[in-house]
Amino acid sequence: MTPSAELKIAVIGVGLIGRAWAITFARTGRHVNLWDPDAGACRRAKEFIATILDDLAENDLLDGRLPADVLVLITACTTLEEALNGSGWVQECGPEKIDVKRALFARLDELSHPDAILASSSSALLPSAISEDLKGKHRCLVAHPINPPYLIPAVEVVPASWTAPEIMTAAELFLTSVGQVPIIMKKEVDGFIMNRLQGALLEEAFRLVANGYASAEDVDRGIADGLALRWSFIGPFETIDLNAPGGIADYIQRYQPMYSELFEQMRERVAWDGPVLRDVLQSRRRLLPESDLADRQVWRDRRLMRLRAHKSEVDKELSR
Amino acid sequence: MTPSAELKIAVIGVGLIGRAWAITFARTGRHVNLWDPDAGACRRAKEFIATILDDLAENDLLDGRLPADVLVLITACTTLEEALNGSGWVQECGPEKIDVKRALFARLDELSHPDAILASSSSALLPSAISEDLKGKHRCLVAHPINPPYLIPAVEVVPASWTAPEIMTAAELFLTSVGQVPIIMKKEVDGFIMNRLQGALLEEAFRLVANGYASAEDVDRGIADGLALRWSFIGPFETIDLNAPGGIADYIQRYQPMYSELFEQMRERVAWDGPVLRDVLQSRRRLLPESDLADRQVWRDRRLMRLRAHKSEVDKELSR
Repeated sequence: MTPSAELKIAVIGVGLIGRAWAITFARTGRHVNLWDPDAGACRRAKEFIATILDDLAENDLLDGRLPADVLVLITACTTLEEALNGSGWVQECGPEKIDVKRALFARLDELSHPDAILASSSSALLPSAISEDLKGKHRCLVAHPINPPYLIPAVEVVPASWTAPEIMTAAELFLTSVGQVPIIMKKEVDGFIMNRLQGALLEEAFRLVANGYASAEDVDRGIADGLALRWSFIGPFETIDLNAPGGIADYIQRYQPMYSELFEQMRERVAWDGPVLRDVLQSRRRLLPESDLADRQVWRDRRLMRLRAHKSEVDKELSR
Repeated sequence: MTPSAELKIAVIGVGLIGRAWAITFARTGRHVNLWDPDAGACRRAKEFIATILDDLAENDLLDGRLPADVLVLITACTTLEEALNGSGWVQECGPEKIDVKRALFARLDELSHPDAILASSSSALLPSAISEDLKGKHRCLVAHPINPPYLIPAVEVVPASWTAPEIMTAAELFLTSVGQVPIIMKKEVDGFIMNRLQGALLEEAFRLVANGYASAEDVDRGIADGLALRWSFIGPFETIDLNAPGGIADYIQRYQPMYSELFEQMRERVAWDGPVLRDVLQSRRRLLPESDLADRQVWRDRRLMRLRAHKSEVDKELSR
């Protein structure tokens, strides 16, 4: 069953990620059931959600709905059975521990409607490890958001080898229907797509600082005022496709020799917690004292809201 | 001499990069002299510049000036001597060939005011290779833009070992004064900062496609609707600094083991022009036929204009 608009969505575990998913689903008009093994957690989650909804409304990010009309779609359930009842999509957001996930998925597989899709928010555990012993393992996958999903649309959708192709198709349709951008993996791999790409960039960033070529601050500026501008609306492949007269094949012919030489110099690992950490920390803490981290996270989310609004507006006007 | 506001700027070579630099400098009210060994090039450059200025004015990216008031600041010179006369900053934009650059820099060193700063736009040639034989090598450096600099503010400033520290300081001040964001290298290295970071990300992007994990299209979406959103205003170091409760040191402690495992799987080189190229090309040409590349470049620059306007607006409102 495709998790159609009549079906509810269950969010299991309502910490940081579960709360964010609830907002993401409910703002598109979907009914969301929350459940958490901690009895008071759902009430606290709804209080938190209410504050975020006001911010989102101000930035026109509630799909035209009023905060109260979104909040009323979110139901705190007292039992797992109740949360799963009538749910066609189950978004698991428990702790990132394999034993906990396996035990939780066993219960989800047992108690949910047999056609519901069971999606884990895991950022690092492979879907095969979570689902291998389950009768319903064909309907299990990972749907890993970048937090918070109501501001960052990309969601990695990762199958185990036994995840049914029609489940992957249904997951893609469903996530698109709630305004997200599904990034479809064809097979699972450690780190999925996001952490591998982020890791590759970070490793070179740490290397540049470790080898004394630039400060962490200048590397951040080089990305924020340089490379990431194009990446933020077309990604790295299209960027180079547009950077040579004959497109990406032409680009590769022109520049692969230069990159190949660089890669020879980029093979040695950098210990991120080695001597470079002192430099990076000094740079970061001079720009932002540790006591200001929480305020800066709020600021970052406000910037993300504005950026998302900007992108929607320009997408409409200039297409993609 | 710091290239003060009374001094002119010389742009030597008026192809794609030289034209873009001329716009970047002139829109902040600076007098710009153009020179090119090809006699008709300066006239063609001014025609091209006029069309871009109209676009920039529409997007409020001319520092409050009218296109005609910017255009009048740009003078086509018939001799190199004339272009260098009264110039405190010389931006060399010749072909990316070491012999040509060396010969050109020898003339610049001979003919320019001895206190002028001589900056090459080179993306790959090291400043030491360009300037080693010059009497005025202490005043030579690379100032490498990401094209076009009037839309992408980051400029890599790269010294040779003999570049004077006060020249680096003056370059930083000058580039800031014309609205750019100087990214200061402490010493030269192949690929500078940008191409090393871009190369690291691209290599992993090609690897994901080559190994059958995802399509090029999905990798681009993962960056454009995922990772690059935060990178586009805070960069990768600040992103992870805000992604763990205790900041970047806490992040490293939590996630370095995961990344270390990934890096072991990321050591083997990918031939970008190997079998993966067929998949990437198929994906790109399906989304964008080769005949549409030029139109798409125009579209990209319009998106960049809007993004730059968005960032300026939000920078003012929410600071950085």
